[in-house]
Amino acid sequence: MQIAILLYPGFTTLDAVGPYETLSRIPGAETVFVAERPGPHSNELGSLTLVAEASFDDVTRPDVLVVPGGPTGNLPLAHEPVLEWVRAVDRTTTWTTSVCTGSLILGAAGLLKGRRATTHWLAMNHLASYGAEVTGERVVTDGKYVTAAGVSSGIDMGLTLVGRAAGDRAAQSVQLLIEYDPQPPYDAGSPEKAPADLVAEWRERRGVA
Amino acid sequence: MQIAILLYPGFTTLDAVGPYETLSRIPGAETVFVAERPGPHSNELGSLTLVAEASFDDVTRPDVLVVPGGPTGNLPLAHEPVLEWVRAVDRTTTWTTSVCTGSLILGAAGLLKGRRATTHWLAMNHLASYGAEVTGERVVTDGKYVTAAGVSSGIDMGLTLVGRAAGDRAAQSVQLLIEYDPQPPYDAGSPEKAPADLVAEWRERRGVA
Repeated sequence: MQIAILLYPGFTTLDAVGPYETLSRIPGAETVFVAERPGPHSNELGSLTLVAEASFDDVTRPDVLVVPGGPTGNLPLAHEPVLEWVRAVDRTTTWTTSVCTGSLILGAAGLLKGRRATTHWLAMNHLASYGAEVTGERVVTDGKYVTAAGVSSGIDMGLTLVGRAAGDRAAQSVQLLIEYDPQPPYDAGSPEKAPADLVAEWRERRGVA
Repeated sequence: MQIAILLYPGFTTLDAVGPYETLSRIPGAETVFVAERPGPHSNELGSLTLVAEASFDDVTRPDVLVVPGGPTGNLPLAHEPVLEWVRAVDRTTTWTTSVCTGSLILGAAGLLKGRRATTHWLAMNHLASYGAEVTGERVVTDGKYVTAAGVSSGIDMGLTLVGRAAGDRAAQSVQLLIEYDPQPPYDAGSPEKAPADLVAEWRERRGVA
């Protein structure tokens, strides 16, 4: 089982690492970071550099595709080499997945038309513009397309997919080994739970209605 | 505010990235990955490479030190250059922190004697061997020493520290932006919650009594 995680300049780190830390623990799985240009890739904040070892030519038939997100301006939404590779590998994947605004890349590639999908709470309208039926759920499955909400939701998506690929016991093993027993010190992890004025502030800052 | 995250060959990725994704969002914070030898560092699984931009000489007075863990055999527990740097920067940190078995490195450096601390559930006895008073809590604070349990607990620790450093509203902002509203599909994230036979299996595999 080959798991391909797409990298591009300005990605959000945990979007990639949440699925990585769970999926790559599937017994026998091979995980590979793939980019148009192999080599070091700086994240959205510029203070973390992750290396893509493989090029698009190196990875042509992954079983699982993971597309992380990032700030909208960083996304390769009109960059054909990325969209073409995504469309090409999607033809043979078992699962095509995204975290956060990674679903906008799937949308721009034309893969989410008429499909139920999700994204970061600040990008819902943008995702809908690609013809997706956008939901507020944390992990959304429509056929082989699995999309997750903002950043940290990739851990929940990863565990869900470990269960589907390798069974409940394998997923429980991964959860136990990464000690994923979340105890957030605040309860502000969604626009429904966070203080309303904080949600409004971020909508305004990001220019989202 | 400078946040230094230690890297060494064979670290566990999410141990480093959980605190990174939260702490580096503190307004005005500068985050830097530091290693004895700057450059690419392969993680425990060998399929992810993160770059340390700074050497020990480059980072001598960070405000926050974050020490990620890894499989015990990968830890620099008897490697004096690492332990010396950890002890040296600890003299002036505001917080000295660890995730998972990173606390064993703090212990080996002699920083946890008589202090309340925690680690990955499979490493409790090992941590106690350094004179720490080991607890089963997810995030443990003793003075300026903040230690977190296994792997994913670094997200909870990071949010806790964002709150202490920048206030509750800043921490809630970070939680909202990374959409940290965990919904694990299983409930096996601690040895108390996971199936008993699975816990026993992992204790046996790792040779832990």
